[in-house]
Amino acid sequence: MEFIQQYAPVILGVCALIFAYYLIRKVSKADPGTERMKEISTYIHEGARAFLIAEYRILVFFVAILFLLIGLGIGWVTAVCFLVGAVLSTLAGYIGMNIATKANVRTAAAAKDKGMNAALSIAFSGGAVMGMCVVGFGLAGAAVIYLITGSADALSGFSLGASSIALFARVGGGIYTMAADVGADLVGEVEAGIPEDDPRNPAVIADNVGDNGGDVAGMGADLFESYVGSLISAVTLGVVGYQVKGAFFPLLIAALGILAGIIGCFFVKGDENSNPHKALKMGSYVASALVVAGTVGLSFAFFGNIKAAIAIVCGLVVGLIIGSVTEIYTSADYRFVKKIAQQSETGPATTVISGIAVGMQSTAVPIILIAVGIIGAYLSFGLYGIALAAVGMLSTTGITVAVDAYGPIADNAGGIAEMSSLPKSVRKITDKLDAVGNTTAAMGKGFAIGSAALTALALFVSYAQAVKLFDSGINVLDYKVIVGLFIGGMLPFLFSSMTMDSVSKAAYKMIEEVRHQFRTIPGLLEGTAKPDYKKCVAISTQAALREMLLPGIMSVLSPVLIGILLGPAALGGLLAGALVTGVMLAIFMSNSGGAWDNAKKYVEDGHHGGKGSETHKAAVVGDTVGDPFKDTSGPSINILIKLMTVVSLVFAPLFVAIGGLIK
Amino acid sequence: MEFIQQYAPVILGVCALIFAYYLIRKVSKADPGTERMKEISTYIHEGARAFLIAEYRILVFFVAILFLLIGLGIGWVTAVCFLVGAVLSTLAGYIGMNIATKANVRTAAAAKDKGMNAALSIAFSGGAVMGMCVVGFGLAGAAVIYLITGSADALSGFSLGASSIALFARVGGGIYTMAADVGADLVGEVEAGIPEDDPRNPAVIADNVGDNGGDVAGMGADLFESYVGSLISAVTLGVVGYQVKGAFFPLLIAALGILAGIIGCFFVKGDENSNPHKALKMGSYVASALVVAGTVGLSFAFFGNIKAAIAIVCGLVVGLIIGSVTEIYTSADYRFVKKIAQQSETGPATTVISGIAVGMQSTAVPIILIAVGIIGAYLSFGLYGIALAAVGMLSTTGITVAVDAYGPIADNAGGIAEMSSLPKSVRKITDKLDAVGNTTAAMGKGFAIGSAALTALALFVSYAQAVKLFDSGINVLDYKVIVGLFIGGMLPFLFSSMTMDSVSKAAYKMIEEVRHQFRTIPGLLEGTAKPDYKKCVAISTQAALREMLLPGIMSVLSPVLIGILLGPAALGGLLAGALVTGVMLAIFMSNSGGAWDNAKKYVEDGHHGGKGSETHKAAVVGDTVGDPFKDTSGPSINILIKLMTVVSLVFAPLFVAIGGLIK
Repeated sequence: MEFIQQYAPVILGVCALIFAYYLIRKVSKADPGTERMKEISTYIHEGARAFLIAEYRILVFFVAILFLLIGLGIGWVTAVCFLVGAVLSTLAGYIGMNIATKANVRTAAAAKDKGMNAALSIAFSGGAVMGMCVVGFGLAGAAVIYLITGSADALSGFSLGASSIALFARVGGGIYTMAADVGADLVGEVEAGIPEDDPRNPAVIADNVGDNGGDVAGMGADLFESYVGSLISAVTLGVVGYQVKGAFFPLLIAALGILAGIIGCFFVKGDENSNPHKALKMGSYVASALVVAGTVGLSFAFFGNIKAAIAIVCGLVVGLIIGSVTEIYTSADYRFVKKIAQQSETGPATTVISGIAVGMQSTAVPIILIAVGIIGAYLSFGLYGIALAAVGMLSTTGITVAVDAYGPIADNAGGIAEMSSLPKSVRKITDKLDAVGNTTAAMGKGFAIGSAALTALALFVSYAQAVKLFDSGINVLDYKVIVGLFIGGMLPFLFSSMTMDSVSKAAYKMIEEVRHQFRTIPGLLEGTAKPDYKKCVAISTQAALREMLLPGIMSVLSPVLIGILLGPAALGGLLAGALVTGVMLAIFMSNSGGAWDNAKKYVEDGHHGGKGSETHKAAVVGDTVGDPFKDTSGPSINILIKLMTVVSLVFAPLFVAIGGLIK
Repeated sequence: MEFIQQYAPVILGVCALIFAYYLIRKVSKADPGTERMKEISTYIHEGARAFLIAEYRILVFFVAILFLLIGLGIGWVTAVCFLVGAVLSTLAGYIGMNIATKANVRTAAAAKDKGMNAALSIAFSGGAVMGMCVVGFGLAGAAVIYLITGSADALSGFSLGASSIALFARVGGGIYTMAADVGADLVGEVEAGIPEDDPRNPAVIADNVGDNGGDVAGMGADLFESYVGSLISAVTLGVVGYQVKGAFFPLLIAALGILAGIIGCFFVKGDENSNPHKALKMGSYVASALVVAGTVGLSFAFFGNIKAAIAIVCGLVVGLIIGSVTEIYTSADYRFVKKIAQQSETGPATTVISGIAVGMQSTAVPIILIAVGIIGAYLSFGLYGIALAAVGMLSTTGITVAVDAYGPIADNAGGIAEMSSLPKSVRKITDKLDAVGNTTAAMGKGFAIGSAALTALALFVSYAQAVKLFDSGINVLDYKVIVGLFIGGMLPFLFSSMTMDSVSKAAYKMIEEVRHQFRTIPGLLEGTAKPDYKKCVAISTQAALREMLLPGIMSVLSPVLIGILLGPAALGGLLAGALVTGVMLAIFMSNSGGAWDNAKKYVEDGHHGGKGSETHKAAVVGDTVGDPFKDTSGPSINILIKLMTVVSLVFAPLFVAIGGLIK
């Protein structure tokens, strides 16, 4: 029993990596299609690699500085664990993005030669590599570190490593993808009048790279952070209340989740006529059901009752429902998106207003769900229960990331089919896969926010414990906590403003470059000359890396500054404030963006005048406003709230020692 | 000494009302101009009256229900005081709006016959009536109730009365003005191509009525609520720590503020060549300086040291600076607005994105100022100091409201000059007065938010005391507080979504009606027939009243519901959460809206292509999105956060008795 308890997490983590390797082989062996397809795929693949390598060059400095600060300020064990977290997160991102840029062309080829089902299988397998790397590296890393060091500090170091990489992956990826997207759309489609994904567009490769950078690597890093964060919080809180048992229980739940996820993957099977969405959903449901069943058993084995299982199921169910609720607000099948499309008839201003109203309204149900989840988890198992709920929500991370990362692969496959002039029937299959990908992406975003909220909350409780405020509490009537609450509440707004500005600046540079190429390369628009794709890739890369520095530094420095100046209680207020406004802003911005996107597509499908009408123009404005909302600022806030909490957790001993310079 | 302490507040309150009466006489005696001017003025005057009377008809029911609930649940003394607060707030709004709709035409007439200085004097006097009514009724009412009952409960009842009216005035006024504005602009200017304020436009009167309803009555009610709320909080906290002395001190500060405000009014004097903005600023500065001087004296007299004065000055100074900071983000003299104008060159999407980024960024400085103010106030006088800071910030409410209400009067005067075809020289004067009004309006909005934040915070502390959580604290680690925090943080988003939807619906109806009149009234566009102004006024009125009900009920019910279900601690969390996100959203929305407005004007002044260019069209989209931001949703949040806190304060005994149904 003890052997299982100790080593099962490591073993299952490794299993996930082995399964990932199996999937990599499967994808790699698949046919990459025609020469033209291979050529385009190589462009995307190389562009993605170039971005990652450039990003890592900057990350090395950032990580080195933090490594030294942690080593000198807190201890070298924590610093080394920080390094391990950073390396594993990087590795997961690299492998996932690498295989995604191979799976895209093979999905297109499978659609061409073998039909929908084979294409779905390749695309999903590509996504599942990212999913399995996230849970594999996450769980094995956390479990090994805990086995070796047995220290909560070391674990928070590991978590901070994951968080730092996540910040850059999310923010950098978000800026990258938006700059490329806006550049490609605005100059290519609107000004030059060439279709989407047209190979004559110089920014088209950067756009496809961006989909991988933002949606595969960014989402993966985000959930890697949540996954590790929730585990670390549950371990640290569990060990306080229930000794070793309390520490290993969440790790075993995660191990169970990996097993369930792998099994779930085999249930993702469509046939030629069914909706691929059903197949993907089936995989998630099977995995969730297995986790629920296993959790009940583990709960009895560990604690002799079902209470821990209730807490975990609370999180799991809330996560599933939040995903579905997100769909209601962002899918054209429901009234909200239809209303935005209708409001577009009176021009872009009403499109924007109604989209903002929908996004703001969409905060209500997820928040009430989270609140109910917190109540349920707490009543069954106290504050430890809240951390367990986060672990429960994230137990199916493997398959959730797989379903989510499937989206950009299908999207890319469509782009490659278009650029390689494949027959319409192929494009029809990839379009169907892509449409499903849009829905799963919206659901994934909802899940990412919900899990970020719960993880940040769990980490917040761990923080309170680390700064020894667990018993005295963090009192909102304490003026320092009030001040922290206000400043913390402001930070997500400032952060969003920064990331939106960054997108504007980066997009501006891309627009200039695309215009320049159209002007100066003879025969480009006629299709007789090739654009300079690499230049656009380089512009997006450089802009993303330069622009992510300021928000990155702000996220790390502001908690440290407040912790040193005003002390641990004020910092607690700051974290609570940032958590509350951050979650709201993230939901609002992601859902507004998703709703605008689908409202535009709904109009393009022939409603309210269809493509080219004034209504369509208004809907395009909404979509363009929504792009940085949903792909840059909104998702980046997830990272912000977790990262600030983890930074506070790691530097907690320092804040306790100083106690606040302003008494 | 004791006599002064007890009766000075009442006496000064009455003095303010006498001064208001003097100003009413002054305005009424002024020449109302030509027959045509009188005719138009009568339309506006009657429209405003019609709106108020219709509003009061609904309010009677709302107030009656709350009166019974308070009487049965808490006690009849509190219920009667609630009634008094509601009546006084209504009275202040009615008198202020009544005289504003008289001052507008007389300002135009003065501009025609006597020049800038005389026009400024009439417009400012009209605004000062509202200002003096707010402080006069507010202080006299609070002081008399405290003298008679000596009860904190009775005072919170009074405050709730003021708040309920404020809700309807702000939300209803905001919806009214936006429906009329959008209807007038979109159909009149854009579709029919007739100029702004053209008498052929059926919605033009409703538009002018709306300016009074939203900006005079709405702003007045908002600051009446803050004024009364800050006093009540300071009295209740003061009496706990310093007995009677602590209760009378803030009342005397308010009395001092009234005196200073009246004196300040006499310093608002321009000459023909100077900038009217300088004259208005001079009045505020004189009043502030007098308050500072007097406060130091009172602080020594009451507490033997300068500490109380420091707390008060903290609030006063923060209020002044927030106003100026608002100007930086929303005036075309600074880089933010210029950047939005420049971004409009690439279309409406970039206009919207950059405006949102500016608004979000603009939260940072005011929040840091508020944080510094809180730290200063607390370190000098504890939690009571925070309430004193709120009183200090609001001590100059009389002249602040006067300067603010001056804006719509000048705006109306310009409209009347246009509709009466007065010479261009007259319009030039009113334009200059109006431009200053736009700046003072933006500053006033900043001040209103800052004071709402500080007042809500002070009331929150009073609430904690009332529910006996003052000593045990409101612990953010308590799961109920966490749940409250999340739900509270969500409410301002939901509320804003509701108010924006309301504007859309109301504007849609107005657009239909204006189009209908243009179509069906022969000779209307040629100027040979008159439009049916009353129909448009009725549509705005009905839409405003119907649409304000749901957000109104939500504001009152949600704290009661959470208080009963989850108990006082959870409700504390809810209030803190709503306060934090509410303040951010209010600043963000108000400043984004103000910045878009001025970016449009900046383009119209001939920059980036000027009027009629594509850039201008994009800027107009920004302005249209910004209208409900800055005139409906943003300012309404001020009311929401204060009202929810006051409701909680009034029903505190109930929550303590029940203690939360979910244990």
